[in-house]
Amino acid sequence: MMMKNILHIVIFLVVAHSADGQALVSPSGQLKAHFALTDNGEPTYRLEFKGREVIKPSKLGLELTGNTQKVEFSAEGEQNNRQEVHSLYDQFKVVDLQRSAFDETWQPVWGETKDIRSHYNELALTLEQNHTARRLVIRFRLFDDGLGFRYEFPEQRNLTYLVINEEKTEFAMAGDHTAFWIPGDYDTQEYDYTESRLSEIRGLMQQAITPNASQTPFSPTGVQTALMLKTDDGLYINIHEAALINYACMHLNLDDTAFVFQSWLTPDANGTKGNLQTPATSPWRTIMVSDDARDILASNITLNLNEPSKIADPSWIKPTKYVGVWWEMITGKSEWSYTYELPSVHLGITDYGRVKPHGRHGATTDNVKRYIDFAAEHGFDGVLVEGWNVGWEDWFGNAKDYVFDFVTPYPDFDLTGIRDYAERKGVKMIMHHETSASVRNYERHLDTAYRFMKEHGYDAVKSGYVGDIIPRGEYHYSQWINNHYLYAVEKAAEYRIMVNAHEAVRPTGLSRTWPNLIATESARGTEYQAFGGSKANHVTVLPFTRLIGGPMDFTPGIFEMDISKLNPNNTSHVNATLANQLALYVTMYSPLQMAADLPEHYERFRDAFQFIKEVALDWDDSKYLEAEPGQYVTIARKGKDSGNWFVGNVSGEDGHISRIDFSFLDPGKTYTATVYADAVDAHYKTNPQAYIIRKIEVTSDSALEQKAAPGGGYAISIVEQTP
Amino acid sequence: MMMKNILHIVIFLVVAHSADGQALVSPSGQLKAHFALTDNGEPTYRLEFKGREVIKPSKLGLELTGNTQKVEFSAEGEQNNRQEVHSLYDQFKVVDLQRSAFDETWQPVWGETKDIRSHYNELALTLEQNHTARRLVIRFRLFDDGLGFRYEFPEQRNLTYLVINEEKTEFAMAGDHTAFWIPGDYDTQEYDYTESRLSEIRGLMQQAITPNASQTPFSPTGVQTALMLKTDDGLYINIHEAALINYACMHLNLDDTAFVFQSWLTPDANGTKGNLQTPATSPWRTIMVSDDARDILASNITLNLNEPSKIADPSWIKPTKYVGVWWEMITGKSEWSYTYELPSVHLGITDYGRVKPHGRHGATTDNVKRYIDFAAEHGFDGVLVEGWNVGWEDWFGNAKDYVFDFVTPYPDFDLTGIRDYAERKGVKMIMHHETSASVRNYERHLDTAYRFMKEHGYDAVKSGYVGDIIPRGEYHYSQWINNHYLYAVEKAAEYRIMVNAHEAVRPTGLSRTWPNLIATESARGTEYQAFGGSKANHVTVLPFTRLIGGPMDFTPGIFEMDISKLNPNNTSHVNATLANQLALYVTMYSPLQMAADLPEHYERFRDAFQFIKEVALDWDDSKYLEAEPGQYVTIARKGKDSGNWFVGNVSGEDGHISRIDFSFLDPGKTYTATVYADAVDAHYKTNPQAYIIRKIEVTSDSALEQKAAPGGGYAISIVEQTP
Repeated sequence: MMMKNILHIVIFLVVAHSADGQALVSPSGQLKAHFALTDNGEPTYRLEFKGREVIKPSKLGLELTGNTQKVEFSAEGEQNNRQEVHSLYDQFKVVDLQRSAFDETWQPVWGETKDIRSHYNELALTLEQNHTARRLVIRFRLFDDGLGFRYEFPEQRNLTYLVINEEKTEFAMAGDHTAFWIPGDYDTQEYDYTESRLSEIRGLMQQAITPNASQTPFSPTGVQTALMLKTDDGLYINIHEAALINYACMHLNLDDTAFVFQSWLTPDANGTKGNLQTPATSPWRTIMVSDDARDILASNITLNLNEPSKIADPSWIKPTKYVGVWWEMITGKSEWSYTYELPSVHLGITDYGRVKPHGRHGATTDNVKRYIDFAAEHGFDGVLVEGWNVGWEDWFGNAKDYVFDFVTPYPDFDLTGIRDYAERKGVKMIMHHETSASVRNYERHLDTAYRFMKEHGYDAVKSGYVGDIIPRGEYHYSQWINNHYLYAVEKAAEYRIMVNAHEAVRPTGLSRTWPNLIATESARGTEYQAFGGSKANHVTVLPFTRLIGGPMDFTPGIFEMDISKLNPNNTSHVNATLANQLALYVTMYSPLQMAADLPEHYERFRDAFQFIKEVALDWDDSKYLEAEPGQYVTIARKGKDSGNWFVGNVSGEDGHISRIDFSFLDPGKTYTATVYADAVDAHYKTNPQAYIIRKIEVTSDSALEQKAAPGGGYAISIVEQTP
Repeated sequence: MMMKNILHIVIFLVVAHSADGQALVSPSGQLKAHFALTDNGEPTYRLEFKGREVIKPSKLGLELTGNTQKVEFSAEGEQNNRQEVHSLYDQFKVVDLQRSAFDETWQPVWGETKDIRSHYNELALTLEQNHTARRLVIRFRLFDDGLGFRYEFPEQRNLTYLVINEEKTEFAMAGDHTAFWIPGDYDTQEYDYTESRLSEIRGLMQQAITPNASQTPFSPTGVQTALMLKTDDGLYINIHEAALINYACMHLNLDDTAFVFQSWLTPDANGTKGNLQTPATSPWRTIMVSDDARDILASNITLNLNEPSKIADPSWIKPTKYVGVWWEMITGKSEWSYTYELPSVHLGITDYGRVKPHGRHGATTDNVKRYIDFAAEHGFDGVLVEGWNVGWEDWFGNAKDYVFDFVTPYPDFDLTGIRDYAERKGVKMIMHHETSASVRNYERHLDTAYRFMKEHGYDAVKSGYVGDIIPRGEYHYSQWINNHYLYAVEKAAEYRIMVNAHEAVRPTGLSRTWPNLIATESARGTEYQAFGGSKANHVTVLPFTRLIGGPMDFTPGIFEMDISKLNPNNTSHVNATLANQLALYVTMYSPLQMAADLPEHYERFRDAFQFIKEVALDWDDSKYLEAEPGQYVTIARKGKDSGNWFVGNVSGEDGHISRIDFSFLDPGKTYTATVYADAVDAHYKTNPQAYIIRKIEVTSDSALEQKAAPGGGYAISIVEQTP
């Protein structure tokens, strides 16, 4: 149920073309945007924060491409002669201008806070191109914490079908800022972040492009959004997009002499970058800015620029804490596959009853029941099982079209027996649909697969898109494939299924509209800690980048950092302390949280595990206590419909001394805080499992100084004392 | 029900590598094939007909392409190092050889004859590549009327997933033959045929490439199959393929100095030409040959190289004669669309109730009922209606993804009322699914669309794929899109739906396996007579080319040749006489036959129309009386389960004097033959509607000399006289 408290004031002003352009001021006045046309009729904008330049004058517009269609010679001799003017970025004049103000507080189905305020001033400019009479609307929404703008293509006789050659939106930086970036890539987002000056990106690109299952980098200065930037004078700037619907995902390509980013869309198989039919809109381009990094974390611009929920009754959408048969395969302790005997699998033909199992299959009935028992004992909502269905012997890297059928279990996975067992234990099974990026195959099976889920009591699915996309030539972030991800989510909503998509396009706040999209991966997750490791500061960057778009199924909670103990052939080390892993349940906001490690590892550290069991999944409030990208993030959150608070701090390579107070607590009440912290000699590399748990009494007047080790952190659960 | 009379003798011979190669002789001995390896281990074959060289020594094999997949760095450090030897055409030795003979007579669900004999000798060679140990089987089947061979890729450790760069099958001609060819093209087959020497193809190519809705020619000497050839010494050679399943459609590219054709597959969006997983097979490559052109028409090689029917109970598959709301749109007399008011259509959003109809919509309830009345009066089985469903305002040429939903009628098309009306009149409605080549959209809606059909009593669908393929970059004849066509047919079989696909890949005998694929278009059909016209000899070539693969929905039966009488803006002339149009129901074999012209035109020529009403759709026997590609075709067919015979002759630009006898009739019986012939002064251009109908008495001893005008022909119905 979402109740709205709307104050919506619309002021209509029709203004003639002003040579001086138009200014737009944020509600508090701290942000100012300015729109103007150049002498050549090119739209430009700039942005100031408290009088300081954030975005220097930057051009706006799109370049279209030629008519890709052939002409049919019909009886009528009718030839559809298309508009062949490709520029949609110059020769414009302003023909209409509308200003409005908007102030609404809305309630998300799940979220970091119970209420979200959307408060902005809006300027919508209708431009007309002199020589073509084509109209383009650019709509600006200026919040106190940032700017959103988008292109709108009204229905009009002279512009019906657009083929985009490139969007030419500029973000002109005021200097050689520090950036937290990953390489621009059409197929993967799973890179470690590099912190560098803008001028250093080119030199660092090659080493930043680490191998991936599917990857297509495109430029030595191309980076992905959300891009986090910091200026030398202490401004924090974040560039991303919101409401990526029926459009190609945007990258940013840097002119590293002028420090100007330009949008770089993900192409389709034919090299063009999108097809639109008017009326249409681009996604919102967002620029958050503040002189306090915490404001970036607190910003709700991305959600506010998305449409309200389309799910009338969201009662079936439930934040979920889960365990799963997963980490043992990721580490190589067990396997997704069932046998080594098959050169390849022909679904429907291959007879698994006649092959010898290799004995390393993870998703066996007995093993799954062990996880169900563990989940039931410790109060987890669900159990994910990967590798339950036939096809994993050759699922990856073969560009195989019919790779999975999503309904046929391996012989040693007793689907109905497990289903009944889980039901008796009060645990929900979570479905797994790896598609191997064979998108047509998935769509062909989607209805059957979703029906199969519901028939067997599964309410949530983790989907995966590993490998190169089929249809061939498309990319993970092309318009056409982005449409698939949303199609899968919308169809899931019809079935009342929650979706957790992996390797899908990075989120842009669509969970507001489709709250059954409870999480996505779309970044370098915990699995990389078993693939050689991630940087110790990775989790201090993600809240400023990947999480700007929405929750991530990061799968935290690794307690055993030496992966060779699980698999002697895997020398990976998890670059985090155990306390850091606990803190992630607070710092990495998601309504879907996994306890990713093996049950036996949690059994070894039952006192620490207690935090994972206790921590809430959904929140009435969040306080961003400390934040510096790449160094530390400290967040306090209040559990939904409870007085309990949870605090998490994660720290980077240098560790951190945290100084926080508890003023967020209710005055006059006394709480017991259980602090799960790094031991003094803890270190992510050399001593990651050294932690201390202590209980302290706190009130809203209390303060705390707490040291976090390198790659460390701490977690606090705060419960009101009962008199 | 298909009863089989199988004589299957398998002779196993394991033979060491023979430097002299291996010979294979057809059952009668008139055809001899020979297989050998070159010194470099390249497989070659050649073919002789009665001692005359048909195919000179020609190489066989495939070129693979590199590993298109990336390597995932997994915990195990496992890297799937692919075989990077691209040649699968040399360094082979023969390691196994099997010979067998096969003689079977089977009964098609529908066909030109009641029984079809499949009689051949087979040679299967297992080759092993010296440096890779990869195995390839080449299987030859030699019939008395031609050779079929294919590649087989057995399951093996060294060859699991293949990416094809090109198939390198050669067809080396013995001279500068005359060819009946259309330009090789990845997206259209709808060209007029050119008759020329092989050496003239290059010079004639440009003018042969006439405009089409979607077209991608690829080479100045590229042509399509079925390719009909004639040698100077009177041999007729036909090259095509059979059983095109999970493979790219083959073109032929000519080396026009050596007169060697090489296979040229249709690429995928990424430029490669197919992905296979072993075990796999290529389609059959077929070479028919005879010194009598009639044998090419009579050959059943294409069907015999396909698998038996997979439809256990085909009782619901019914040959169908139909009329339709179609020609009036093709000519421009009426339109598919409903309104001119919409710049574009947004399905589900556009409200057709609020727009002004243009008044030229063809698929109105009243007009459809007129066709139903006409069908009922004259004994037609079905009525096709195009333009019944919303979306036609911008259906074409816009690369529009969500272009049709296949279930929503226009406001002036009363679907249920029409359904009930047709049912009362005993007429079946035929569904129309234009996809605009938006293949994903069609697949997304396929189940719903088929279910909708069955709910409303539709048992057959005409599907269409006009325009460039979506997903972008794929072609109409790519492996991946070929898979779609078959997917649609197989799914239709589940629903007991008959399919008539237009613009789909040319047929290769798959109707044997899926007899619900009752026809396809896949060539230049009658519609082009309203798009400026086709060559007068076109219908004398099609039986030697397009029809080799299976029946065509050619939509004959045009009685009004002056299209300006239907639409003053259309100056097209139908290049055929009326008698020629009648003959097509016999010469263009199809279990699906349309009477394409308007009811009012048939009313004007009711005596001639009688032939269309009477002619059978399914046959117990067929006799190929006269044949010369480009000049004339004369065929007699005996109606299924009746003693009635029908004869058709079509003639080309020069006309023809036909000399036939009736020895096919039962001896001792007397028949009345009704001859529908060109009048003496008939001419396709100047006097096309001049015909004479006469009745004569014939027996099996009778003979007939009958003149056909230029672009003319004649049709005869033969009914036994009752004493």
